Amino acid sequence: MHYELYYWPEIQGRGEFVRLALEAAGAPYIDVARGSKKGQGVEAMMKLTAGGARSVKADQTRLPFAPPFLKVDEELIAQTSHILDYLAPQLKLVPRDAAGRRFTQQLQLTMADLVVEAHDTHHPIASSLYYEEQKTAARKRSKIFIAERIPKFLDYFEHVLTRNPHSHSHLVGTSLTYADLSLFQVVEGLRYAFPKSMKRGEKAWPHLVALHDHVAALPRIAAYLASPRRIAFNENGIFRRYPELER
Amino acid sequence: MHYELYYWPEIQGRGEFVRLALEAAGAPYIDVARGSKKGQGVEAMMKLTAGGARSVKADQTRLPFAPPFLKVDEELIAQTSHILDYLAPQLKLVPRDAAGRRFTQQLQLTMADLVVEAHDTHHPIASSLYYEEQKTAARKRSKIFIAERIPKFLDYFEHVLTRNPHSHSHLVGTSLTYADLSLFQVVEGLRYAFPKSMKRGEKAWPHLVALHDHVAALPRIAAYLASPRRIAFNENGIFRRYPELER
Repeated sequence: MHYELYYWPEIQGRGEFVRLALEAAGAPYIDVARGSKKGQGVEAMMKLTAGGARSVKADQTRLPFAPPFLKVDEELIAQTSHILDYLAPQLKLVPRDAAGRRFTQQLQLTMADLVVEAHDTHHPIASSLYYEEQKTAARKRSKIFIAERIPKFLDYFEHVLTRNPHSHSHLVGTSLTYADLSLFQVVEGLRYAFPKSMKRGEKAWPHLVALHDHVAALPRIAAYLASPRRIAFNENGIFRRYPELER
Repeated sequence: MHYELYYWPEIQGRGEFVRLALEAAGAPYIDVARGSKKGQGVEAMMKLTAGGARSVKADQTRLPFAPPFLKVDEELIAQTSHILDYLAPQLKLVPRDAAGRRFTQQLQLTMADLVVEAHDTHHPIASSLYYEEQKTAARKRSKIFIAERIPKFLDYFEHVLTRNPHSHSHLVGTSLTYADLSLFQVVEGLRYAFPKSMKRGEKAWPHLVALHDHVAALPRIAAYLASPRRIAFNENGIFRRYPELER
């Protein structure tokens, strides 16, 4: 069985957290909106979203608000953290005990909060406006994001790693979870967007850097990162490099 | 057994979504940070958060990033949507089938996205700055939030209500879920913050208004709303009324 993932084809974005989990597990999947066969592509994805709810014609009674979403039989499972919580037991990327599974999801949701803030550094006024139209506000927001928010979030994850009694290179328990993969992606994204600030700050987060390096070296992840399946960071995604936002 | 909820004592905020679920179910709970007994109050709450991770002294190995969180035995369960997903089966506020439970959570996470955006209308630059310091950006963000984002989200929920084959006054299945309670709260909050815009817009969302009225009339919710346990909306919360943001 192939998993069917629906997400924007030209960015890492939120879909990347799901892609990383599928790749790390070696699970077969189709990145539907990136496909060119019949029933694939962006149009096929849009038909299943209720973003333009008034005009939706699809027969499904339960449509997601927005990508990413997973299609499993006739069910559409949306919201990044929630998709990961659903997939994780099948992919063996979460502890088997209920409390461990909950804490993993809690960490993922905290990363989701960070991701919203990272996005809003370049789009503080509206996603529907161009970056150039909100540059002044973007500079202000970025300055505080770098000074206050990155340290607050990354201190927290460093704290969690330090306190994990079973392993300092995993957030939960002794084995790889989807939260570890996501934290790798968060570090990658922040390094891309704010290279100078991360270079200066990272000495405060040794376990986090070690986790990042550990994930990057996992054979399946290393193979994925070197493949054309990994979309490069770019200025349409969540993490963007605008040097003027890092002064 | 009493549930122990930890959240800021002077605002509805994100904690209100949990309070509404506990109240609707008639579940006994302690709103710990609002208490004045030993081991209660804001300080007791802060001791359990890792917000200032570097200085945390608590013995727990798994601390939340921020309130709200629930304490269940020694486990701390954080993140609003996740708390609700945990509580819902116990409170009978979610369908028993897995797909129904998933869709309910998906809707809750979509509301959480809306809540972030509603907050950022008055704090588009940083939560750590005063509103007065970011008023110009707040006006711009609010204008687009009102024109584009409120309709996009509420069209979606109206769409979900319209397409629920079992009931147009419930989001999922035939019975009350925590997502219904949360949608009530979203409507309350948006009406408080943007009364003129909601008055103009609501005719497009008849099922949503009917759901709101249905929830408000539930005996336990009506009793709660009339009690001192319901904190009034105010200008420290997520939904704030600044008339200059609604022009």
